Amino acid sequence: MKENYDEYKDMINEHLLDYMPSIDTKSSSLYESMKYSLTAGGKRLRSVLLLASCEFAGGDAKDALAYACAMEYIHTYSLIHDDLPSMDNDDLRRGMPTNHKVFGDGIATLAGDGLLTTAFELMNKDMFLYFDCLKELKKRINAIYTIATGAGVRGMVAGQVSDIESEHTQCSNEMLEYIHLNKTGALIVAAVRAGLYLGGANEDMMKDLTVYAENLGLSYQIADDILDVKGNEAELGKKTGADAQHEKVTYVSLNGMEASERKLKELTMNAVEAIEKYYDNAEFFRELVLKLAKRTK
Amino acid sequence: MKENYDEYKDMINEHLLDYMPSIDTKSSSLYESMKYSLTAGGKRLRSVLLLASCEFAGGDAKDALAYACAMEYIHTYSLIHDDLPSMDNDDLRRGMPTNHKVFGDGIATLAGDGLLTTAFELMNKDMFLYFDCLKELKKRINAIYTIATGAGVRGMVAGQVSDIESEHTQCSNEMLEYIHLNKTGALIVAAVRAGLYLGGANEDMMKDLTVYAENLGLSYQIADDILDVKGNEAELGKKTGADAQHEKVTYVSLNGMEASERKLKELTMNAVEAIEKYYDNAEFFRELVLKLAKRTK
Repeated sequence: MKENYDEYKDMINEHLLDYMPSIDTKSSSLYESMKYSLTAGGKRLRSVLLLASCEFAGGDAKDALAYACAMEYIHTYSLIHDDLPSMDNDDLRRGMPTNHKVFGDGIATLAGDGLLTTAFELMNKDMFLYFDCLKELKKRINAIYTIATGAGVRGMVAGQVSDIESEHTQCSNEMLEYIHLNKTGALIVAAVRAGLYLGGANEDMMKDLTVYAENLGLSYQIADDILDVKGNEAELGKKTGADAQHEKVTYVSLNGMEASERKLKELTMNAVEAIEKYYDNAEFFRELVLKLAKRTK
Repeated sequence: MKENYDEYKDMINEHLLDYMPSIDTKSSSLYESMKYSLTAGGKRLRSVLLLASCEFAGGDAKDALAYACAMEYIHTYSLIHDDLPSMDNDDLRRGMPTNHKVFGDGIATLAGDGLLTTAFELMNKDMFLYFDCLKELKKRINAIYTIATGAGVRGMVAGQVSDIESEHTQCSNEMLEYIHLNKTGALIVAAVRAGLYLGGANEDMMKDLTVYAENLGLSYQIADDILDVKGNEAELGKKTGADAQHEKVTYVSLNGMEASERKLKELTMNAVEAIEKYYDNAEFFRELVLKLAKRTK
């Protein structure tokens, strides 16, 4: 495994556009729009998790690169659609105008559709490299199915729907947890599990790291809710207080800041405990969840 | 092969919802919204083509059913997004209010995202049924890749983008053909080629049927342009004259009705010629392209 987060992140940033299909110049704004959001920065959390999980299980990150980039394509599409006026109606993302502010709502919707479809196109294309090896194909089919499920109507899309529907309504803690687990958590869990499949992990490792990822996903979202209240706009690259402005229920609005910070700590410790038995081998994952809990952007 | 179109179509209509993942009741409007558009009728052209192509190549339609349904999920998502206010802004589709008119723009966008993701989820899931047979897996990987490419940024999405961008502008015949070939043609070609892969077709058959599908796709769209001028609103289930209203360039607006009808005939004959050497075996495809050219809805 690589020593630190940035080594994986650099790999992603270096190769992210390699997987963009060549698009006819007659649809050049599609390419520009997809590229605009893909290269707008970000932590690359999901793709880094996928690469690290693959290597944790004994695989080589290079062989999982297509799947890691596909995760970023899917995550980026979800941000573009989420920012649309018909959803969160956000003007800024990572300090830059959102996609639809630059390219218009129609092209932004299609750029999202294009990124999502390209993600599956490139993952399936990768399988041609292993066309005569049943064992390698199986790993990849498992990985793609895991990613599709996490991104789909029992995962991220379901979370988005209930997120929209919960605006302006009473929302219980149970409902909020459902939203977080799906909207943010599902793709994070899928990233880890897909990486493990690609690396050839056994059932036991699969189970432990899934618990880790579930706790990481939820803690990540609660940290986000906290940052929306306490964060620094310049560091975040977006306005704080947006949740309150949208009358969006968050863990903080429902339980207060103190309970939210306690919950964040608890989830972080759960994640650390889930991988305890791997000692130093799991240092990367331990450090990551601790760092994310303390993040300022 | 089955005797007629409706036998395949019935198969699709009967099983279309079987492939919907169970969605948590907390996101029930997502399920309702996806189901609303999936079951709103339609010709099921792409899925029927996939099933028929599979059997033409010697396969069994039953084994291709997941892929045929996935085609309908993809086609349906494209219609939902295409109807959005940020794109064509249509109120009616197949005689019913469009998805966003019923569920709102946000849920409609997500229902489209959900259908697209589910399409890949269900195709990849189907591969688990053949998890120890390299030959069958290869057929399926080829089929999925073909569908992803046809639906993606070198296919349908590219066509949508240039369609939007060509509104209110001068548009050449070359540009219009690019739009048609991608927006409508690419998914029709992908349906035929995916079916052929699943049925185990040889290269020669692949080549002939691809030419057939390319001509069918373009003729289908020109017939659509003609119907938008000459069609009967009640039969069509949508307003005619919508293209003119959107200042959308069509084959008819660019070349006149007479030249359009001549072009439609020419493409139809090209399609018929491409499959001539298969004599009676290709009767289904011959009849289909002739019928579609004369359709009234």
